[in-house]
Amino acid sequence: MSSVELVAVGTELLLGQLVDTNSAYVAAALAENGIDCYASHAVGDNRERIAALFREILERADGAISTGGLGPTVDDLTKEAVADALGLGLELDREALAEIEGFFASIGRTMRENNRKQAYLPAGSVPLPNPHGTAPGFVALRADGKFVACMPGVPREMKPMLAERLLPWLRSRFDVRDGIVTRVLHTVNIGESEIDHRIADLFASSENPKIAVLAHDYRCDVKIMAKADSAERAREAIAPLEAELSARLRGHVFGTDAMTLEGAVLALLEERSERLAVAESCTGGRISAAITAVPGASRHFLGGIVAYDNAVKQAQLGVPEETLERFGAVSEESALAMARGVRAALHAQIGLATTGIAGPEGGSPEKPVGTLCVAIADARGERAWTLQLRGDRAAIQARATTAALGLLWREIKIS
Amino acid sequence: MSSVELVAVGTELLLGQLVDTNSAYVAAALAENGIDCYASHAVGDNRERIAALFREILERADGAISTGGLGPTVDDLTKEAVADALGLGLELDREALAEIEGFFASIGRTMRENNRKQAYLPAGSVPLPNPHGTAPGFVALRADGKFVACMPGVPREMKPMLAERLLPWLRSRFDVRDGIVTRVLHTVNIGESEIDHRIADLFASSENPKIAVLAHDYRCDVKIMAKADSAERAREAIAPLEAELSARLRGHVFGTDAMTLEGAVLALLEERSERLAVAESCTGGRISAAITAVPGASRHFLGGIVAYDNAVKQAQLGVPEETLERFGAVSEESALAMARGVRAALHAQIGLATTGIAGPEGGSPEKPVGTLCVAIADARGERAWTLQLRGDRAAIQARATTAALGLLWREIKIS
Repeated sequence: MSSVELVAVGTELLLGQLVDTNSAYVAAALAENGIDCYASHAVGDNRERIAALFREILERADGAISTGGLGPTVDDLTKEAVADALGLGLELDREALAEIEGFFASIGRTMRENNRKQAYLPAGSVPLPNPHGTAPGFVALRADGKFVACMPGVPREMKPMLAERLLPWLRSRFDVRDGIVTRVLHTVNIGESEIDHRIADLFASSENPKIAVLAHDYRCDVKIMAKADSAERAREAIAPLEAELSARLRGHVFGTDAMTLEGAVLALLEERSERLAVAESCTGGRISAAITAVPGASRHFLGGIVAYDNAVKQAQLGVPEETLERFGAVSEESALAMARGVRAALHAQIGLATTGIAGPEGGSPEKPVGTLCVAIADARGERAWTLQLRGDRAAIQARATTAALGLLWREIKIS
Repeated sequence: MSSVELVAVGTELLLGQLVDTNSAYVAAALAENGIDCYASHAVGDNRERIAALFREILERADGAISTGGLGPTVDDLTKEAVADALGLGLELDREALAEIEGFFASIGRTMRENNRKQAYLPAGSVPLPNPHGTAPGFVALRADGKFVACMPGVPREMKPMLAERLLPWLRSRFDVRDGIVTRVLHTVNIGESEIDHRIADLFASSENPKIAVLAHDYRCDVKIMAKADSAERAREAIAPLEAELSARLRGHVFGTDAMTLEGAVLALLEERSERLAVAESCTGGRISAAITAVPGASRHFLGGIVAYDNAVKQAQLGVPEETLERFGAVSEESALAMARGVRAALHAQIGLATTGIAGPEGGSPEKPVGTLCVAIADARGERAWTLQLRGDRAAIQARATTAALGLLWREIKIS
């Protein structure tokens, strides 16, 4: 037996006022570090119930890891419950007190008496300092070596504490010398079943490194996980498989790990010293919003025109009235005119345009809800595509955004 | 004792590949219906562990409610685990089989053998039909009256099953005749502490109906919850308090319950038969995206110009070069010129503009990261505001969007 269970503390979780995202985050980090986690729990701000839960967990597992309930208020009872569950007293931790005093000094505020309470930890605990807040974390130990590790519930305080303090402690506690490395290849313009078809043999034969395909809205991730006796060996095991997968999915892998599609588009624009302008109808500003989410986007993104009304398509983008009348606003012809128009108006090297029917109204038998036309105009010329997307209005708008960015990425890539 | 505990089933939850949003949704529905929930759990696709968890829960609570693990694959083991935990056999439920056959007929696909497995339920269960999928839910009963209720994990199947089938069953099981009614007043352009200040006396004196203030990014919700012996009585108890709160927060309440800020803006535009155009710099398309998320937005939203580059501010919006040079792109003067420009260019009654510094780069001592200028131009004239927002790039972009929509709502409202 070598496993932990998770506990999220907070009555708001059991009233449905807050979705617990901490547990999934901690669980993913444990999985990447080869530490088994067989259950996760949420419990309210009740000292007896929290203590009873910790006791039960330690009957099954080696340890419990909690988030939340370490604040300075009377509702924050995790620490007291841990002390109850393990039969330990609370003692003032001078180091933790100095940390809290230092934190208040750094933000220029006076420390209150109830923050002093936060420096008391279960006797004999390993403190986990919190440079981003006042609640120190800790690992409390039972005489038999089982443990309860407690972290604050605020994600921006919990995440660095987990990475910098708790995971190293857990790896040494569980004697995890293995390196587990995950590599994600992000693909676009290719469906999950086509990916499965192209890599089925690798998929079947590969246990370590292991491959998984995860479908998102209009793009797929291919995840490679390797376990070896060091992180470096694990990376060595991944390299040839990554090369093979990249070859089989050539033209579809826009980036790895933390790279986003909009980030990949901007990186290509940077390479080619080109600037982009966008004309959006059915995506309503979502392509511009995605691109401007990337810091420094202003270097290669000039701007866009959200041409929701046909009058705007005509006046701002120069789409001929005849094109709109003859082919309709949702047509490759109109999309091409929009792309051409925004490229010219904003003096961009590349113009991208979308027009479609997001619904729930506006569909017809020839052009049902979900119809999307995308066009690109650049130095190589002009091209357009028609896609059929599924889902409700929000899903169609999101998928249309990804589909358009995916086509744009491919067209810049091969240019 | 009259309480339940929740169980989310799925190994992906314990690997951190999926955040469990079902439990918060079910918990909120239970709270609204006066049914206590003291704990929530996640467990992997392991028959013994799921069964053990159900057994433990029934030692503490009246019942368990699970989501997930009802699909047709070998990984779906919730039903088998319930049968184990309660000592029941699985029996073919003819009604459930007819439902599944009907579902496949309705989508025009052939039913596979493993879908037949889904029609087997623990003996004596109350079936919970699933019109949106193939996995029927059920309530399995133990001899002592304790129960395990199981629903599918797909939210669009689970939510209607909960509302239409399980909640009525639970209300009759727990003899809940009370009506619990919640009313939410959405406010904008007013801070949490100012709201607290204005309603402190109501807050303190009111246990039923009860008031809660929830802060979001740049807007706050005031929630009123009342419990009475019928929903109608509960609504009657809320009415005078809602009127009093609305009076004290006059000019800030943009809507109630499911209304969104962008929906409220569009409703005002509809009332006044006016059309809007938006010029966005630092919000990068997010205002247009928010507005176009509302079905039918095209009637009152003409479109927008994302003027990320100064050249676009000049050419498309007619912002004078002198204004940009003298006051800077992030200034009330430039914002006013953008609002005026987009109103004129798109022939709108109202022009809204944003310009600011989202960071992480681009800040200065005079105009730090988070500086936001908003301007509105309409038949009444032109006005501008400067705000200072906090957070990282994503938070500043989101808050700037809400702040601009909030100012727009107020200015149309009082016009």
